[in-house]
Amino acid sequence: VLVLTGIGRDEAEQWTDALAAAAPNLEVVRGPVEDERERVEFALTFVPAAGEMASYVNLRFVCAGGAGVDGILRDASLPPTLPLLRLVDRVLTARMSEYVVHAVLHHHRRIAHYVAAQARGEWEVREQREGTRVGILGLGALGADAAHKLSVLGFQVAGWSRTKKAIPEIESFTGPDGLRALTAQSDVLVCLLPLTRDTRGIINSALLAELPEGAYVVNPSRGGLVADNDLLAALSNGRLAGAALDVFNEEPLPADRPYWSHPNVAVTPHVASRTDARSAAPQLLDNIRRARSGRPLLNRIDRDRGY
Amino acid sequence: VLVLTGIGRDEAEQWTDALAAAAPNLEVVRGPVEDERERVEFALTFVPAAGEMASYVNLRFVCAGGAGVDGILRDASLPPTLPLLRLVDRVLTARMSEYVVHAVLHHHRRIAHYVAAQARGEWEVREQREGTRVGILGLGALGADAAHKLSVLGFQVAGWSRTKKAIPEIESFTGPDGLRALTAQSDVLVCLLPLTRDTRGIINSALLAELPEGAYVVNPSRGGLVADNDLLAALSNGRLAGAALDVFNEEPLPADRPYWSHPNVAVTPHVASRTDARSAAPQLLDNIRRARSGRPLLNRIDRDRGY
Repeated sequence: VLVLTGIGRDEAEQWTDALAAAAPNLEVVRGPVEDERERVEFALTFVPAAGEMASYVNLRFVCAGGAGVDGILRDASLPPTLPLLRLVDRVLTARMSEYVVHAVLHHHRRIAHYVAAQARGEWEVREQREGTRVGILGLGALGADAAHKLSVLGFQVAGWSRTKKAIPEIESFTGPDGLRALTAQSDVLVCLLPLTRDTRGIINSALLAELPEGAYVVNPSRGGLVADNDLLAALSNGRLAGAALDVFNEEPLPADRPYWSHPNVAVTPHVASRTDARSAAPQLLDNIRRARSGRPLLNRIDRDRGY
Repeated sequence: VLVLTGIGRDEAEQWTDALAAAAPNLEVVRGPVEDERERVEFALTFVPAAGEMASYVNLRFVCAGGAGVDGILRDASLPPTLPLLRLVDRVLTARMSEYVVHAVLHHHRRIAHYVAAQARGEWEVREQREGTRVGILGLGALGADAAHKLSVLGFQVAGWSRTKKAIPEIESFTGPDGLRALTAQSDVLVCLLPLTRDTRGIINSALLAELPEGAYVVNPSRGGLVADNDLLAALSNGRLAGAALDVFNEEPLPADRPYWSHPNVAVTPHVASRTDARSAAPQLLDNIRRARSGRPLLNRIDRDRGY
């Protein structure tokens, strides 16, 4: 039995349909399961209730429904040896890069200016930005794909990650000095990091102060990466040209938050990239077969690292 | 002597600077030249005054300042054997593709919805568009580059051109039947055609009626390609989801035109792609050297074809 739990109703329906089509013999239930919990062998979840995973005594693995696993790791009662998996989905990656490329072009091509000029009915040419440099925090599957696509579009792209990466055309930085060096050369800073104890609040005053004057910040990964007061201060004092924010410390973003009405902030409701159940189902099913036949599981999370 | 004429003041300044740096011995003057017109050997222009080119009796070639030559060909007094050249500029091509990719993503990712939802302060998720198909009218240097970049981003891309093209991943259509076939499968129709007697008004009711319901039109090439009343009707009766328009039959777009205030139209003031003088100057200088040494000129326009 596979339990779908701690995920949105729409997502649960898509997974149910995709799994019914791809594996009609797999029993799929919606959680949290109250009766016969011992029958649950596998779980797919974004943010399970605290203790829910521990209540399934025969659970063989937990698979995250999206790219990030922070919603699962926050449950302190998660059994320490329970394998934790994630999905590395082609469609999710492509969608994330679409969001990132759009946000970078929005800044680079001064779209906000042209939208405002149109609203005033004014034919008002602004000088073209040239040589916009993009820095990407995180060069995992998502960051590497966005970096490649931005590079094809002609942007100079660099990235920062825990370990050095060899990606054609992409300069790779690591460590605290590398973070400062990358930030100092990023006209657009794109955040594609996992949320871990090391990355929480990484977008703070110290980092924002290193950015070139008039830089732009793009965050489609996790709201917890941002120290909101620091980002708002940098937006309001003019150091930053603006920001594109898809994720927030509290979601849905409460009505009283200044991001909503800030003229240079683009707010989207955590839609940068959703997992496509049809595309990702084969990965989940492969891991179920592996678990049943005792073979190694794929895409395992290193809990200590946090991703 | 090279004359810069019938181009904007900013462009003329950029060309003057770029040519002074690259060819300090070349005499460059601003037109129209009134005295000693016989000294003018070369002209760089977008839209010369009628008769101006004919008045330079020793002119060896006219080079268009951008990708299109329609502004030069409209002068009926243009000497029939005078070589007409264009610039095929890497920077111009890259900028055009940025505009096109941005416009396609704007539609595909429902940005207009999210901007409106933010203005209302509402966290309102819309279902992700899937499988957006892009059709490109014109597969010259600009169309081919945009097609490639959209394909890298994961879009299914097809194109229509006078002659069949073999571009990896891009389906190629030709002829009237090919135009109908391409249009019928284009969720986004991107116009990158030259303006010629064959293409004037090509975006008309007949073509728009072939598009899938809810399609999006992107035109960064020439306003004369569009029959405005037909496009406005298709926008207003809901057949089209919207349009991104950078060029117009009359520029600057007059204040009373409905495009300005149409909720689903993005108006930009002919800024999709401007020639970068520094990047393009070597091409112009190469053709000047060729003319002086009697070698064949590069990037010649076929006047009969119109591009």
